[in-house]
Amino acid sequence: MEGFKIIEWLGDRIKIIDQTELPHKEVFLELRDCHEVADAIKKLCIRGAPDIGVAAAYGFALAAQGIKASSKADFLTKLRPISETLASSRPTAVNLFWALERMNKVAHSGKNVSQIKAALITEAQCIETENDEANRRLSELGAALIQDGFTILTHCNAGSLATAGYGTALGVIKMAKEQGKKVKVYANETRPLLQGARLTVWELLKENIPVTLITDSMAGYFMNKGVINCVIVGADRIAANGDVANKIGTYTMAVLATENGIPFYVAAPMSTIDFSLSSGADIPIEERNPDEVTHIQGIRIAPKGAKAANPAFDVTPHCYVSAIITEKGVAREPYVEKMKELAK
Amino acid sequence: MEGFKIIEWLGDRIKIIDQTELPHKEVFLELRDCHEVADAIKKLCIRGAPDIGVAAAYGFALAAQGIKASSKADFLTKLRPISETLASSRPTAVNLFWALERMNKVAHSGKNVSQIKAALITEAQCIETENDEANRRLSELGAALIQDGFTILTHCNAGSLATAGYGTALGVIKMAKEQGKKVKVYANETRPLLQGARLTVWELLKENIPVTLITDSMAGYFMNKGVINCVIVGADRIAANGDVANKIGTYTMAVLATENGIPFYVAAPMSTIDFSLSSGADIPIEERNPDEVTHIQGIRIAPKGAKAANPAFDVTPHCYVSAIITEKGVAREPYVEKMKELAK
Repeated sequence: MEGFKIIEWLGDRIKIIDQTELPHKEVFLELRDCHEVADAIKKLCIRGAPDIGVAAAYGFALAAQGIKASSKADFLTKLRPISETLASSRPTAVNLFWALERMNKVAHSGKNVSQIKAALITEAQCIETENDEANRRLSELGAALIQDGFTILTHCNAGSLATAGYGTALGVIKMAKEQGKKVKVYANETRPLLQGARLTVWELLKENIPVTLITDSMAGYFMNKGVINCVIVGADRIAANGDVANKIGTYTMAVLATENGIPFYVAAPMSTIDFSLSSGADIPIEERNPDEVTHIQGIRIAPKGAKAANPAFDVTPHCYVSAIITEKGVAREPYVEKMKELAK
Repeated sequence: MEGFKIIEWLGDRIKIIDQTELPHKEVFLELRDCHEVADAIKKLCIRGAPDIGVAAAYGFALAAQGIKASSKADFLTKLRPISETLASSRPTAVNLFWALERMNKVAHSGKNVSQIKAALITEAQCIETENDEANRRLSELGAALIQDGFTILTHCNAGSLATAGYGTALGVIKMAKEQGKKVKVYANETRPLLQGARLTVWELLKENIPVTLITDSMAGYFMNKGVINCVIVGADRIAANGDVANKIGTYTMAVLATENGIPFYVAAPMSTIDFSLSSGADIPIEERNPDEVTHIQGIRIAPKGAKAANPAFDVTPHCYVSAIITEKGVAREPYVEKMKELAK
């Protein structure tokens, strides 16, 4: 994004933009330990799978700096609860666990405490840089699938705000525009937390990409009318067989796209692929507070006493996914083989 | 509903509950001429296809009482703009035009002005009574499709509030419960105007029917998980071939239900069927103010400058409709023949 970094490392703290306040207010938060970082992830001040990974890495590095340890063994023991605090913030996006694993590996392979502390900062910065590079590369590969004049539907927010980088789904769209293609976007508002209405529309307005906001329930209407040329979304976790966990409502978009003969693309860095899971059935789905459904921006919409459900993600079976766009290449069926090849 | 009538004829005015204020406040409006009635329909103070039909009939009768005319011909001339005002309130629900046609027929076939004035009141009351009877009869026929223990998904509000009667989609559910079946409901919130969250949940809580509120984007998740046994919705207009116009998002529910092998039922009185249209392609779709999408209950959710679309209805092709439940019987494919038979 212009003007500010999504996550900024300031030596003894990280500075982030509070995404729950967007688009109305640009509020910045300074987070000083792993609890503050975990809390910001839980509350969605920082959100989006790649962004969560980068934030967790910085949270880990930040907390590590504050450890007073007599030995490497002591240091590693004290790192464990830090890692656990960050890991327990949100269950679905795998990038969080992937980033923590990288950080832990660096900690374990380091020589001594002061060397490890420095190496952890470098590793977090490295995760951020690699993430941005992966975003750009996958956006280039994805942009090849976008034709001049395309109208693209997207769900939730998989832009700079979600990635602390160029963006994944929105990265592909931005890159297509940079290549001189005229593109338009239909953005689902993405209830309950309205990341589409609040964040995607905000980002696209800043990028001067024409965007029409719709409710999630309107996407099928516009697909059926022939208005939409393709659907692109991000992902929170992709199983080895190509099943995709992403924001609740994604499965619906994929079914509607398939039914209407519209390509359904998933854009995500390789770090989103969880090769340890053979299918999406094993991806844990976060159940959030029902108040997010009975209320909108703090205003009660349902009568008192109303019970609500609030699964934050769903799993789209790979049969509905036309292609998975990664920085290593574009995978199509059979995903099991194709994604393994990309990972080599 | 207990405690009050949705539309109450008071001789020189009608009294309605303002549905835009529910569930937070029970505000009643008294409407004294056809402009006030048309305005209440436009603003959705009165809504739901059968309810609009009943309201329009009463609005017609009400305005007719105020006409000062020297002859029947003069009276009929003065009735025309009244009919036009009411007809222009909303374009999609056919019950509005059907009710106005019945009222106009009564006016034309009457002997003299004072006899016609009285006959119009009787006709409006008759439309209301017939509507309630049709609701109850179709609810009985529909309840036969509901098994004990069913969990039923519904979209928007097709209950007492929408029908000035027993209800259509919710009527079927209420009747199943009255028959001693244990039923549960998942209610889509139904953005943009949240008729599900505000009205359906409110009605079902009053009926002591267990209801779980979800966002529209969650319905696919619960269908795919095997939680939903059938989907029932109302209709605003049904073409002769069984294509169904209903609240935006209905098409999506029908596609998801079909994909998951779940029956998708439409419950509506015969007055909702428009035999003059051979397919749903000809049903006019109301485009409402984009502010309904960029705002929720008056609170802005999207950034300033955001453009939004707001089609209020969509058309579900008959191939996704398992059955159309009317007071004359339950129609299934081939709808063209079956619905013609029911209309005999």
